[in-house]
Amino acid sequence: MPVSTDPSLSTSVTFDDIQAAAERIRPIVQRTSVLTSQVFDRQAGKTTFFKCENFQKGGAFKIRGAANFVYSIPKERLGHGVVAYSSGNHAQAVAIAAESVGIPATLVMPEDAPKAKVEATRAHGPRIVHYNRFTDDRAALGAKIAAETGAMVVPPYDHPWTMAGQGTVALEFLAQAPDLDAIVLCIGGGGLIAGSAIAAKHLNPRIRVIGVEPADGNDTYLSLAAGKRTEIPPPATIADGLRAQIPGELTFPVVQRLVERVVLVTDDEIRQTVKFLLTRLKILVEPSGAAPAAAVLFQKLPPEIRRVGVVLSGGNVDYELLASL
Amino acid sequence: MPVSTDPSLSTSVTFDDIQAAAERIRPIVQRTSVLTSQVFDRQAGKTTFFKCENFQKGGAFKIRGAANFVYSIPKERLGHGVVAYSSGNHAQAVAIAAESVGIPATLVMPEDAPKAKVEATRAHGPRIVHYNRFTDDRAALGAKIAAETGAMVVPPYDHPWTMAGQGTVALEFLAQAPDLDAIVLCIGGGGLIAGSAIAAKHLNPRIRVIGVEPADGNDTYLSLAAGKRTEIPPPATIADGLRAQIPGELTFPVVQRLVERVVLVTDDEIRQTVKFLLTRLKILVEPSGAAPAAAVLFQKLPPEIRRVGVVLSGGNVDYELLASL
Repeated sequence: MPVSTDPSLSTSVTFDDIQAAAERIRPIVQRTSVLTSQVFDRQAGKTTFFKCENFQKGGAFKIRGAANFVYSIPKERLGHGVVAYSSGNHAQAVAIAAESVGIPATLVMPEDAPKAKVEATRAHGPRIVHYNRFTDDRAALGAKIAAETGAMVVPPYDHPWTMAGQGTVALEFLAQAPDLDAIVLCIGGGGLIAGSAIAAKHLNPRIRVIGVEPADGNDTYLSLAAGKRTEIPPPATIADGLRAQIPGELTFPVVQRLVERVVLVTDDEIRQTVKFLLTRLKILVEPSGAAPAAAVLFQKLPPEIRRVGVVLSGGNVDYELLASL
Repeated sequence: MPVSTDPSLSTSVTFDDIQAAAERIRPIVQRTSVLTSQVFDRQAGKTTFFKCENFQKGGAFKIRGAANFVYSIPKERLGHGVVAYSSGNHAQAVAIAAESVGIPATLVMPEDAPKAKVEATRAHGPRIVHYNRFTDDRAALGAKIAAETGAMVVPPYDHPWTMAGQGTVALEFLAQAPDLDAIVLCIGGGGLIAGSAIAAKHLNPRIRVIGVEPADGNDTYLSLAAGKRTEIPPPATIADGLRAQIPGELTFPVVQRLVERVVLVTDDEIRQTVKFLLTRLKILVEPSGAAPAAAVLFQKLPPEIRRVGVVLSGGNVDYELLASL
């Protein structure tokens, strides 16, 4: 993962950057609803506010970072387009952001990516380059395309522009649901929680920021314990957006500084939570997005936290999983 | 269906009744969210606002009418409890309303009602009496229980208290989404659309009120054409909440007076809309609740209607249907 495509760029993200990002991406993102549920609260024993980024354009928060990145590219470079590699929500987000300003996008996607995700991405007109997950190096492939075309690589999390975009989730959320004791977010590469922690702690220094990882994808959990970025074997968790093997270089120091703790949830807890959210709250949330709700529902948070904000980060669920529930 | 359990009661519903109902039921109902969706609007060619009664307590708008009825019962009768017969959302709503004031509820449900619905109802503590749909008369059974216990029958639609409660849907909706050209609602027995039409036309006399029925459950459509309540054979539509065979005695005159037209949708259009709402908007809506959205999505509304309010009336979907999508 390239840390930054521009070595002169500051690697720190400030609250002002997040506010500027919010202005920049306003035309393209939805101000997603915040929902509450008595039946969830009764079971969880807390007052819970759900930030529904599963309702977001492209079905996930990822458009915030991707759009902020694309809209931050200097005019003279923009025409060369962008490149991204992702099998999931980031690919679709980059395609949407590129389409919105009429620049070419190349997406490097695995040959065996779910057909529905490839089609949803293709609908926004990018060039799609397939690679073999077992034999090809997608980062090298992306870098080669970038070098050949002059396109900029859009990192899924480890870049200040991406992080600032993702931070707009908390900026909006805290305006919609004030007086929260804590916000709870999932951790893949860490872009969402790092950006959101910066925004949330600026708006309310007493707010507690809690991360959630699958038990099987606990790279940030282990890294915090070790005091340094620690790599794990490829996780097999159902939460396909949380399969990062190592925290980001830029995101991890922010997590170390601002995230109180990381809570682990099992795949079974995630699965039960996806089902609970669907059958009781009537909303479709993907496993990665349901992980923070699982942490609350299965009472893994400190008991003194009463009012808790949960970010439901996305809703792009494979039909097979849905049918299996 | 008993028209009124109290012959002295006025059969007309006024805007004041609906406002009073809103105050009465405030402690128990959720003020449900209104959502918008660019992807839906692009396909429908309209600006659409969705009133999410699928998020309502009990999973449907029915709690509004049931709670307004229960809370309107004179104190001296209340202790004898309530009786209702329903295989669906009304049963659960009556159980919740009765539980909230600690009175006994008896629910007459078919022996072959979906297990999930029976269990969801049972969780609120009512007595459940099963009957055989093919050999027993549920109305007679309900009346017998009412006579024996002194309990009041809670009609699912054809009663002013029920209608006034259902009208609070539009009261809320128009406050949340002003300047609508039209609101679109499904028609089963007609309680939701009658109550809502009274509220909506009072707040905005120029608003157009459009009803939606399944092609196969077109009793109100035919009744409007005939100028009188007309009975149809039992409909087999997937929209199980819209299988009424004849409009209500009290609801139909209101529909005649305030509803501009009834639009018909096919089961296939309803099914496609349930799937669209789930996979694109990430919300779970039952077939009956999706029928008005289907009318908009499949462009069955007059083209000059630009800003349209769609009531998604419920979200209690059988798992089998969900898996079949």
